Parts: sequence; structure tokens; C-alpha cells
Amino acid sequence: MSDDSSIDGFRFAGLASGIKFDGALDLGLIAADEPVATAAVFTQNRVRAAPVELAAGRVERGRAQALLVNSGCANACTGKAGDDAARSTTAVVARELRSDAALVLPASTGPIGVPLPAERIESRATELVDALRPEGVDDFAQAILTTDKGPKVARRTLSVGGGVEVKILGIAKGAGMIHPQLATTLGFVLTDAPMHSSFLTRALRTATDRTFNCLSVDGDTSTNDVVFAMASGRAEAESIHGSDRDARTFIDAMTAVLNELGTMIVEDGEGTTHVVEVRVSEAPSEAAARLVAGRIATSMLVKTALFGRDPNWGRIVAAAGTAGVAFDPKKIEVRFGDAIVARKGVGAGRAAEAQAREVMSEPRYAIEVRLGAGQAKGHYLMCDLGHAYVDVNASYRS
Amino acid sequence: MSDDSSIDGFRFAGLASGIKFDGALDLGLIAADEPVATAAVFTQNRVRAAPVELAAGRVERGRAQALLVNSGCANACTGKAGDDAARSTTAVVARELRSDAALVLPASTGPIGVPLPAERIESRATELVDALRPEGVDDFAQAILTTDKGPKVARRTLSVGGGVEVKILGIAKGAGMIHPQLATTLGFVLTDAPMHSSFLTRALRTATDRTFNCLSVDGDTSTNDVVFAMASGRAEAESIHGSDRDARTFIDAMTAVLNELGTMIVEDGEGTTHVVEVRVSEAPSEAAARLVAGRIATSMLVKTALFGRDPNWGRIVAAAGTAGVAFDPKKIEVRFGDAIVARKGVGAGRAAEAQAREVMSEPRYAIEVRLGAGQAKGHYLMCDLGHAYVDVNASYRS
Repeated sequence: MSDDSSIDGFRFAGLASGIKFDGALDLGLIAADEPVATAAVFTQNRVRAAPVELAAGRVERGRAQALLVNSGCANACTGKAGDDAARSTTAVVARELRSDAALVLPASTGPIGVPLPAERIESRATELVDALRPEGVDDFAQAILTTDKGPKVARRTLSVGGGVEVKILGIAKGAGMIHPQLATTLGFVLTDAPMHSSFLTRALRTATDRTFNCLSVDGDTSTNDVVFAMASGRAEAESIHGSDRDARTFIDAMTAVLNELGTMIVEDGEGTTHVVEVRVSEAPSEAAARLVAGRIATSMLVKTALFGRDPNWGRIVAAAGTAGVAFDPKKIEVRFGDAIVARKGVGAGRAAEAQAREVMSEPRYAIEVRLGAGQAKGHYLMCDLGHAYVDVNASYRS
Repeated sequence: MSDDSSIDGFRFAGLASGIKFDGALDLGLIAADEPVATAAVFTQNRVRAAPVELAAGRVERGRAQALLVNSGCANACTGKAGDDAARSTTAVVARELRSDAALVLPASTGPIGVPLPAERIESRATELVDALRPEGVDDFAQAILTTDKGPKVARRTLSVGGGVEVKILGIAKGAGMIHPQLATTLGFVLTDAPMHSSFLTRALRTATDRTFNCLSVDGDTSTNDVVFAMASGRAEAESIHGSDRDARTFIDAMTAVLNELGTMIVEDGEGTTHVVEVRVSEAPSEAAARLVAGRIATSMLVKTALFGRDPNWGRIVAAAGTAGVAFDPKKIEVRFGDAIVARKGVGAGRAAEAQAREVMSEPRYAIEVRLGAGQAKGHYLMCDLGHAYVDVNASYRS
């Protein structure tokens, strides 16, 4: 890991444009020095926000120069006015950058169904572009937050091509409407490593599939989810491509960055008091293991039991049984940390549950479910469901 | 509707056997005077409790004489001991009834993974059978409850065959782990109308599909769900069969009974403060409409917004978008009662939302979602998610 907060070829800015009523930072910009290889994965929700529609069309060319992001308004379900706002704000910022509007990709997050105040963004475009600097990561990371308790930034440095160091920088937001399907929330991954957008796309899909697509805060998939990746190519390395060792090393490092961000998202999940990794093993296939883990991770009864520190393995087994995956309930084993609370489908007794209760007092632990139905594994990162979640979501307008 | 609590050919009993620690009624019995036409639908959870496995095998013959039900223990995930307990308790009760064990169908509800104390049931079998009486419905209805606030009984009287009155009596329990898939919770439907078990099975499947399979308290499907139906044939009517007017009238009446019970279950859902019917129309198919309604009904963000009386149609539209159903978000319309809060995919403004807030102060109301993608309809009955749900489920062991 590198402590250096900058990454060659990119500059960052964040400011308060008045979209949020409380004066918090709400407008962010990432700009490459020139058009660079760019990839993105988008929400699978059929209802897609205006910026998602626009960015999805523009990213197809595989190159972009800037990412314009606002919080405080999702610009979703806003009709033609929303489409117009996404186009005009990116056009104004492109002009300030002396770039092309088609090279500026928008993203928005916040309440659905509220018109985007485009004029607030456009009137601050000059200031926003002037504020761009290599060390502006923290301002940008602040500007994209909604109910998050804090910014989410992760970095990795790796060696490729016989000793050349390249960097990967990731930035994300949480904290509700989090249940990714092939994409999630807002995420940004930047690298100075050289590569074509086709490789960058493959790396991003592989890394998000292993990380952001295996976590859930509340089982709800957003209209605005997107993860962008940009590669400046400034590092003095050979272009990464194909599936050789450098390619695998790069994808693993990008996965590590997204995993770190994903963990921060769940830790900062609305009302979270415990972060729990659900590990399902001995499944008939990876897909089956993930289905079972996902059902456990989204069960309200499991989530409330974790909040109450009750090693209620019966609810876990019941949730597993609804995943549509074939297994014999009489072979299932459930562990909280090292405490085996159920073996061969029946309870292991009070001593094991007492041990499990100890594990459940930790802020982070693992639940392991062995299905006894094969060799495959899958996992999901989840959080508990307590009063704070109700408080946040009975009042906050997302 | 008849005020007469009895139904010809059946007797009922309920007593406290000590399975529940607090001395509440926990053991119930319904007995027909002789073996009668019987049907059942069971949970689609792959993890099925011992009584579900045993009853599913026994009901295949289409005849039974008694239903033995306990609360306070689900007898699920209890291994061979659980199977033995289901067999031995029904055998002892059958002997007291001078019947055959294969004609006694068991059902259990309560915490998963706890051994069923068979000896408590068996030692009270004589007393239980002695307590059977035609007017014992309320005792039985009490004995099957868990976290329910009260018993759930519904009745209909209908005329068939040119003026002969027949009765339908329904009894159910709630109140958590409620998200039926082809069956739900514990339900019991009795009639004095004559019919073969093949017709009774068809009527039960049709009626549960229209009612219990369209409601959700928490999105979790139980290991113990079952609805039993028995027909004593004591009414002086022609046997109901086929699909003529009497058959349709009977199925409609059974649907009304199950709908009334289903509504009571959601009203009594753990922590419920509002019961909301989600009506999805203009869908490409009935199945699609129900998928969309089901996604809305299980969204934690929608449920918390209902608790907070926030007409947050954006969350409703976002949930609809994850159902895998094709529709154009720019055609969607959302109403709370008569208040149209979104039209053609965009918000209708503050006056409409203020009107919607009024609707949301009612204990029961409807949300209508018009997809603009066809002619089909579907619905789901849901409840909100508040602090009481968290309190109940962070402590109660289900």
C-alpha cells in the first residue's frame, strides 16, 4: 500500500454547490489530463437514473476524460428534465475542461424523484475545474457521500512487467439501497497502469463480481449504481492485457481495492452494529453457494437475530432452504466463528451457543454454513438490522 | 357469515401441556368423527420440519381423521429424534381416538432446532381427546399461536345445490417468518360440504394461491408452513366437484375465508403499525404483476418509509425495477389511496405528497402501481417495518 494520495494522470475536486441543504460538499469531479481508457459497470435495476443512461451510452467508446458526480439528488425518475440536466451539466464542465461533452461521464446519488438543480452545478463549473488538483482525493470522496458516516478510499501498489510499480486507487460511497446486482453504489477505480479499455472492462467486471456483488446492506438495489474505472497509462510499464501473470496480478489488486471499499460500505451500512461474512461451502456450485449466502444475508429474521446477538442457527437454515438450492438439511453444519452450533442439521447444545454468543459480541465475525452437497464455495458480506436502520430510513428520503 | 361457532362433523380442543414455559395453551387437536376427505399444501422451503415430512406422506391418501398441532416448538432441524417424536405423539393420540396413526396429521410451530418434548404431549393425550367438543374452536385457535397478539378465525356460509347451506371454517396463526411460497404459516380450513379430496385439493391450492401466497410480513419463508383442509360431508348437499357454479362458489368462499385469515396475519405481523395492499396493474402478465408487488412488499426501504409515513414513491419504483419484469420507467404511475404521487415516471409535486401523507396515517390503505406495460394485475399484502419488529426478533427465538 502507498501513502501517496495522488495517482499519476488524474486530478480531483469537491465543493458545496447547494444541492444539499446543509452546506456539505455535494459536487465532485475527477479529470484525466487527456482522454484515457475507461470502463464501467451499471445497476441491473430496470429503472435507471438519467446519468446512468447517459454514461452507459458514452462509455461504450472505451475512452473518457472526466467523471462528474453529485450527491444530494439521484436525478432518477425525473423525466426529460432529468435527461436534459445530465446533458447540460456535463457539457458545461466539458467546456471548462476544453474537452468534449461525450467524454464527461455523469453520476448522481441521493433522493429519487427530485429534479436536479442543473444551474447550481453549471454556475460552479469554472470553480470546480479550477479546484482540480492531484491531492484532491479527499474532497472528491467527501462530495459523493449521502448517509455515509465517512469517506471510503482504498489504494494498492503492485509491480508489473518485471518491477515497474503501478497504482490503483478506489473511492466509493454507501450506505443504503445497497444490494448490488452486477454493479453497485457509486465506485471509482483509477490506475496509472497502461491498458486498453477492453482489458480494463474485463478486470472491472471480474473484480466487482467478486466483491461489490457479494454484499448487502438492505437487499434493495439502487437506480443509480455504477462503478467507473479509468487507466491513465502514465506508469512506465508495458500495457496490461490478456491473462498472463501481470493481468492476474492487476485483477487481484483491483479486487483487493474493491473488497476494501465494499467492506467499508457494509461497516457504514445504515444502522450497522455488526458486519458479518457469510461463508457457504460444500455447495453444488459457486452460483448455488452465492445464492444461499445471499438469502441468509438478506433475511430480516437473521439480521435482527445478529442485532440481538442470538446465535439463531434455525433462522439461518430456514433462509438457506429458500434459495432454490438442492441440499440435505440433515447434513448442514453452522458455525459462528469457531463455535459449531449445528452439526448434521441438529443443534450442538447450549455450550456451543454460549461460545457463539461470545463471537457475536465482536463488531466483525464470520458465519460458516456447510451444506454437505458438493465442493463449491461462495460468500456474502452482510450487516445486522437494528433500531438505527429504522430511524435512518423512516426519515431520510432516498 | 354464520355466528354459529361449530361445524358439523368436527370437534376441537386446546390445552396447556407445558411446551411453552409461560403456561399458555400450546397443544391443539381437531378431530373428525370419522376419516374424511383431506388436502394440504406445504412450505416450499427445502428445509422441512419433521411434522411437515410426516404429514406430507400421510395426506397423500386423501383421507385423515385428526390434526394434532403444537406451538412452542417447531420440531424442525431436530434429526431422527424429531421424526420419532412426530410419529409417537400422533400414534398416542390416534390410539385415544380409536383411529389409525396414519390418519392423524401433525403440525408444529415455534423455535427451530429445539427437540419436541413428546412425553408432555403423550401424557396429556387422554385429556386432550376428552376435551374435544364442537364448540372448542377458540381453545384450538389459542393453542396454535406463537408471537401472535390474538387468535385468527374466519367463517363463511354458502348455498350450493339449489339452496343447501354449507359452512367453511378457517383458523390460522401468524406472526413472523411469513412469506409464503405455495403455502404459508399454519392454516386449517374445515367444511361440512361433501366432496372428494381431489376437489378439496384443487380448491385449497386455488384459494391459497390467491391469498396466503400474496402476503408477506418479513420475506422469510418458514420450515413449518402448512394449510390443511378437511371436508366432513355432513351437509345434506350433493358432492361438489368439477368446475360448475357450485364448485366456483365454494372456491370463492374458501378464498374469502383464507383472505380474511391472511389479512389478520398481516395485521398481526410482528411490529406492524400499517397494513398496506400493493396493487400492481398494467403489467405484461399476472405472474409479472405479482413479482413486482412481491418485490415492493419485501423492500426494507419501502417498509421503513411506510413506518415513517413518507410517500417515498422513488423507493417503490426502485424496488419494482428489480423484479426482472420489463416495463418503461417513464410510464409508471404510483398512488397512495387516491393521491397520485408519480405520473409518467416523475413526481406529481408537494400537494400530492401531502395528500398521500394523510392516506398513510390510516392503519390500512392501498398503494397502486400502474406499470403501463400491459393489462394484467396482481397484488400483495404487506406491513411496515418499525422498532417493534426489531424488538420482537432481536429477542424471540423463532
